[in-house]
Amino acid sequence: MTTTLDSGSVGIVTPRTVRFDQPLLLACGRELPDVELVYETYGELNPQRSNAILICHALSGHHHAAGYHHEDERKPGWWDECIGPGKPIDTRRFFVVSLNNIGGCHGSTGPTSINPETGKPWGPDFPPLRARDWVHSQARLADYLGIDCWAAVIGGSLGGMQAMRWSLEYPDRLKHCVVIAAAMKLSAQNLAFNELARQAIFSDPVFDDGNYIYRDEIPARGLALARMVGHVTYLSDEAMANKFGRELRAGSLEMGNEDDIEFQVQSYLRYQGSQFSSQFDANTYVLMTRALDYFDLAREYDNDPVKAFSHARCSFLVISFSTDWRFSPTRSQEIVDALIAADRPVTYAEIEADEGHDAFLMPIPRYLRTFSAYMQRVGGDD
Amino acid sequence: MTTTLDSGSVGIVTPRTVRFDQPLLLACGRELPDVELVYETYGELNPQRSNAILICHALSGHHHAAGYHHEDERKPGWWDECIGPGKPIDTRRFFVVSLNNIGGCHGSTGPTSINPETGKPWGPDFPPLRARDWVHSQARLADYLGIDCWAAVIGGSLGGMQAMRWSLEYPDRLKHCVVIAAAMKLSAQNLAFNELARQAIFSDPVFDDGNYIYRDEIPARGLALARMVGHVTYLSDEAMANKFGRELRAGSLEMGNEDDIEFQVQSYLRYQGSQFSSQFDANTYVLMTRALDYFDLAREYDNDPVKAFSHARCSFLVISFSTDWRFSPTRSQEIVDALIAADRPVTYAEIEADEGHDAFLMPIPRYLRTFSAYMQRVGGDD
Repeated sequence: MTTTLDSGSVGIVTPRTVRFDQPLLLACGRELPDVELVYETYGELNPQRSNAILICHALSGHHHAAGYHHEDERKPGWWDECIGPGKPIDTRRFFVVSLNNIGGCHGSTGPTSINPETGKPWGPDFPPLRARDWVHSQARLADYLGIDCWAAVIGGSLGGMQAMRWSLEYPDRLKHCVVIAAAMKLSAQNLAFNELARQAIFSDPVFDDGNYIYRDEIPARGLALARMVGHVTYLSDEAMANKFGRELRAGSLEMGNEDDIEFQVQSYLRYQGSQFSSQFDANTYVLMTRALDYFDLAREYDNDPVKAFSHARCSFLVISFSTDWRFSPTRSQEIVDALIAADRPVTYAEIEADEGHDAFLMPIPRYLRTFSAYMQRVGGDD
Repeated sequence: MTTTLDSGSVGIVTPRTVRFDQPLLLACGRELPDVELVYETYGELNPQRSNAILICHALSGHHHAAGYHHEDERKPGWWDECIGPGKPIDTRRFFVVSLNNIGGCHGSTGPTSINPETGKPWGPDFPPLRARDWVHSQARLADYLGIDCWAAVIGGSLGGMQAMRWSLEYPDRLKHCVVIAAAMKLSAQNLAFNELARQAIFSDPVFDDGNYIYRDEIPARGLALARMVGHVTYLSDEAMANKFGRELRAGSLEMGNEDDIEFQVQSYLRYQGSQFSSQFDANTYVLMTRALDYFDLAREYDNDPVKAFSHARCSFLVISFSTDWRFSPTRSQEIVDALIAADRPVTYAEIEADEGHDAFLMPIPRYLRTFSAYMQRVGGDD
């Protein structure tokens, strides 16, 4: 077993669960009667409790961000490229907390959890969520862990939106906010792709308005298709050209050989979709994409991002990727412009990368260098 | 009724049908026992028979490109912006021929036609098609109409691919080739979106491997979803931002009002999908997207576009649109580069337009001016 021997890995990690009996009042006005959060930690909390980092996950993410759950695990946590000894979020210096958000399907209270009022899974009756609900539940976790102030709150994509929301909801509880490949709100095109994904799920007769959860079925085809839609938008045209081009997996384009033609990219997408549908909950996917759609950082600040960020007190690192067309560099520049106008300290890097939106998960040298250099500032006396 | 009074309209037009009893040998090696083509013409063929223009349609197009079928028709043909008196394809000068391609579902022989061997609709057994099959059947139509040589063969998107194929299959039968918003082959990203569309159809249980045709059902949800996927890619991020932004059609983003939120863009997409699914045949959609996937202009010329175009003898106009990310200007520039290297006369314009791939159907002033100016060269003594 070589994985744990890797000096850049946090090694074997064990998820923990915390349960809060206090109801959580949600943005929609409803209350979650109790909340369980599953989380992992990497590194050690220092005596001053000043070196804690919160990782916020994206649409389909979870608490397992780094290391391995057991020696035979094939792949490490989803952000292992960035979390570990000597990595940008250096676990020799930081105490890193990564949780599964409420509404998720990896152990925290969500649509697959039991609704105490009915004794059955919440399913489609799970209350709608906003990013601020995640931030509020993450603050409870901070309280529980005795962390008054995060050295940094960090997230990519939907995780970056949570990090920004932290800077407004709890301005005194974070020193740094790292926003990677995110946006202050979705564009119409983004809304459209999320709608396609949800319609793919709704169109699967097994979904049955989310009631599949009460039977022994999953809307596998709809969920696979939804994931395929998402996946295409996470990759760039360039990345797909480099990775697949027009290579065939089966058959031949010679005339007279029509039946078995299969392009590599088709096969790849079907595989990704099918893998995902066996691991993710469809009600959760619907819930998460809606929270993403409804996120609008400045809505209640007169739609003025400068006014919004004038409430923030932390420093910011904003990173975008050149070929990310789901959350393009233009969207990150809007964040930076608003931060500058609001007189907040901000560092910005647009990283040249072919990998599209997925770049934030990739070991791109300038990305890792920039991220690491910024993190040197974090957790000092600032 | 004002539509036919419009001096820029070709007015009321009537489709015609021609039937060829000779079998058509297809690229796949199979034969279509007989072929019916439905077509329309606009303008008059001159005595020299030298002013004929062929219009090749795109994925979901058909023969009805201009004018109205009857006085109460709400919308004119799909390319009415470009075909008519005083328009780029000026029907005072040209005899314009527009047909529904074989494999289509608007009257020409296709999956909804009766297979003479079985007495039932072809359905999923309709032979797979390549763009060259369309070109060969279009040549039969030219023979029937007594047109030895087209003044120009013109198409946008998949239509532009047919126009290019004409220049190689029948180099002596066209003087000009107009290729708008097209490419010499699809990118991996394009293949991926077509795969999503087909998977949406396949996932609809009503589709049943295409056998819905033998029952009184249509896979409406799958086809609607496929169209939604396509539609999102035909529009640009800019066009969607201008057209919809984050405007709501129903509900409110205020906290506590989650149930009825609907963005305009969601509603628009669902409407487009639902309209399409009542008008188009799912087997046809699968067939057409596959022909698009397999199109590769230079494949049998050692994958060398210069070698391919060295067989052409006509002049070319190539047009692209700045925000078209389905067939980007880069793809058009590759066509232009190959034509220049092959020593073919070529005129190229990249048109600034927010409308994405759909721009080729829109009345964009510089587009219409450029197209009109080029068409002045066509049909003279060149």
